[in-house]
Amino acid sequence: MANLHDLETPRLLLDESRMLANIERMRRHVDALGVGLRPHVKTAKCIEAARPAMASPRGPVTVSTLKEAEHFFAHGVDDILYAVGITANKLDHVVDLRRRGARVAIILDSVEAAQLVCAKSRAAGDRLDALIEIDSDGHRAGVGPEAPELLGIGRALADGGAALAGVMTHAGASYGCRSTDAIRAIAAQERDAVVRAAERLRAAGLPCPIVSVGSTPTATFATNLAGITEVRAGVFVFFDLVMAGLGVCRVGDIALSVLTSVIGHQREKGWTIVDAGWMAMSRDRGTASQPVDQGYGLVCDIAGRPIGDLVMVGANQEHGIVAPRPGSAAAPPDLPVGTLLRILPKHACATGAQFDCYHVLRGGEVAAVWPRLNGW
Amino acid sequence: MANLHDLETPRLLLDESRMLANIERMRRHVDALGVGLRPHVKTAKCIEAARPAMASPRGPVTVSTLKEAEHFFAHGVDDILYAVGITANKLDHVVDLRRRGARVAIILDSVEAAQLVCAKSRAAGDRLDALIEIDSDGHRAGVGPEAPELLGIGRALADGGAALAGVMTHAGASYGCRSTDAIRAIAAQERDAVVRAAERLRAAGLPCPIVSVGSTPTATFATNLAGITEVRAGVFVFFDLVMAGLGVCRVGDIALSVLTSVIGHQREKGWTIVDAGWMAMSRDRGTASQPVDQGYGLVCDIAGRPIGDLVMVGANQEHGIVAPRPGSAAAPPDLPVGTLLRILPKHACATGAQFDCYHVLRGGEVAAVWPRLNGW
Repeated sequence: MANLHDLETPRLLLDESRMLANIERMRRHVDALGVGLRPHVKTAKCIEAARPAMASPRGPVTVSTLKEAEHFFAHGVDDILYAVGITANKLDHVVDLRRRGARVAIILDSVEAAQLVCAKSRAAGDRLDALIEIDSDGHRAGVGPEAPELLGIGRALADGGAALAGVMTHAGASYGCRSTDAIRAIAAQERDAVVRAAERLRAAGLPCPIVSVGSTPTATFATNLAGITEVRAGVFVFFDLVMAGLGVCRVGDIALSVLTSVIGHQREKGWTIVDAGWMAMSRDRGTASQPVDQGYGLVCDIAGRPIGDLVMVGANQEHGIVAPRPGSAAAPPDLPVGTLLRILPKHACATGAQFDCYHVLRGGEVAAVWPRLNGW
Repeated sequence: MANLHDLETPRLLLDESRMLANIERMRRHVDALGVGLRPHVKTAKCIEAARPAMASPRGPVTVSTLKEAEHFFAHGVDDILYAVGITANKLDHVVDLRRRGARVAIILDSVEAAQLVCAKSRAAGDRLDALIEIDSDGHRAGVGPEAPELLGIGRALADGGAALAGVMTHAGASYGCRSTDAIRAIAAQERDAVVRAAERLRAAGLPCPIVSVGSTPTATFATNLAGITEVRAGVFVFFDLVMAGLGVCRVGDIALSVLTSVIGHQREKGWTIVDAGWMAMSRDRGTASQPVDQGYGLVCDIAGRPIGDLVMVGANQEHGIVAPRPGSAAAPPDLPVGTLLRILPKHACATGAQFDCYHVLRGGEVAAVWPRLNGW
């Protein structure tokens, strides 16, 4: 067990008990709704952090890169959904993973992509499992649930040598909501869209075993998932300030923080300078459009308690500028050179990706170091 | 030699001939001004990319983390300035590097930090080399050149057992300039501040062998560096859209790009969806405050030529939304699924940090893969 004072800063801390509580809450919720959980491991990118969220040691999981698929497969996970529209240059890798025993399913949203996947299926002698991505909120990719091409994609897959494994959608618009009622409405719209797409495929005589939804906000506030087989969500394992700003969690649920040291002051400006900049926090400014802007992160003491209105108001590569939130009446606290602080992230996926490991806290001490992967 | 069509996307491409031309231009410029170049390797974080910018195989270099110091020392570089205000928890590491032969110098801007460094110097039997950080433009850390505490810090170092190695400043305010005349003015202010600080220290009988300035914009436009011993600059090796927007380089000088594939369309919105999102480009939006906003990056064809007004207008973790720049009269081009594109980065330091290697282009083919380091 190492003490926080023994670490070189910056370091990424993970409060394990908060993480386990977050996972348990989501698991109970989806259990009550009668659906499965296929956690999105793009947030943690770490087998140790993902395991408590998985239904079994073999998965299922959702991944955002084939490197994640390799990592989790190397650790015994073989039920894997790669949830980014497939490209030709990744198909050989998918086929190779499947030959080695990883049941990797892929997604697509066009007849052209379906034809590519079918051609590879026939060439490889492997009916690749493909889900059709449904656009449930207009925020990104997918075909609309009523789009004529939906059936064309389904037929291209089923008739062309691939396996039509189902439909999936991601209601990313939930991140822009301003109330839990609004999130609930998006959750219903997300469910309705993908259930409708499944109905249309089945009515056309096509298979649709998987009906998959997911985003942490919609998963948290969904009240009816009839017709859904699984929920994908990722950031709930750690949570962050964007999620707290949405009302999806409390600030006290956030399991990640960046340990940093005070390296100086500009006292006439009320600034404290720390050795965590945007390289540690990421350039994400996800709370800038929320009612309370947390800057580059909310500043806590060494025990993880927020210090008044203190946020990181500015960031250079390896420097953070810490000061009371603009408009705050709070005076800048006296934080001598060498003071250790913990900064809560705005976006756990982005901050996590700046580090290659987690320093795992149990009872305030570093009890383990878990590696995480990055890149492609 | 691999073809770009053989790579899984996204990948980080480095055009070696552009990089070498950028380095040669900067080297000629600082040679003409009669000062040394201590390249800041925080941009490339890669010995192969840094070597052409170094005066000798042993350096000098500037680093932003002790992990960079370790990497460059392992490759024979021993003249290293660690240019982030030192903290107590890194001093043992600095002492250890120096015991192994790396002449690592550190920086600080307070009497408290100077006392810490002196205490460690005495305990370790090693007069640690420390530079005083000067605040030349109010953008971040450092003491003002006229500040009374400047002499107090110098005396604390020189009398307490450390080695006062000089003064340094970084005119980060140059990034916010709107004209080359404004950058020239900041460059003069940067020089004047640190030369004045050196004069005050020397007048007080204190040593000040190193007088160091640096930022790519000020280094590029400086016309008089009398009294300066060395220039630190980093991003000039690769350049990026922020630098192009400042007039520090042309778009055609940018040596980095992210190779990505078209994975789908939302044709009624004019969107092309690609498999590089903010995880590949970073969340940096450095051109948002410039006259021309390049979004998450400027979109080029496979040969690196910009395509009309096409930029990445939105980004999710592994998805980019590509469309004509808002306000553009250009029609969205037809880019079929599978089309390879190259996206120029807004900020080379931030985009580079999302990858663990460079795919190095010579004559349009991948001639080498250079690893880069990240983290701390």
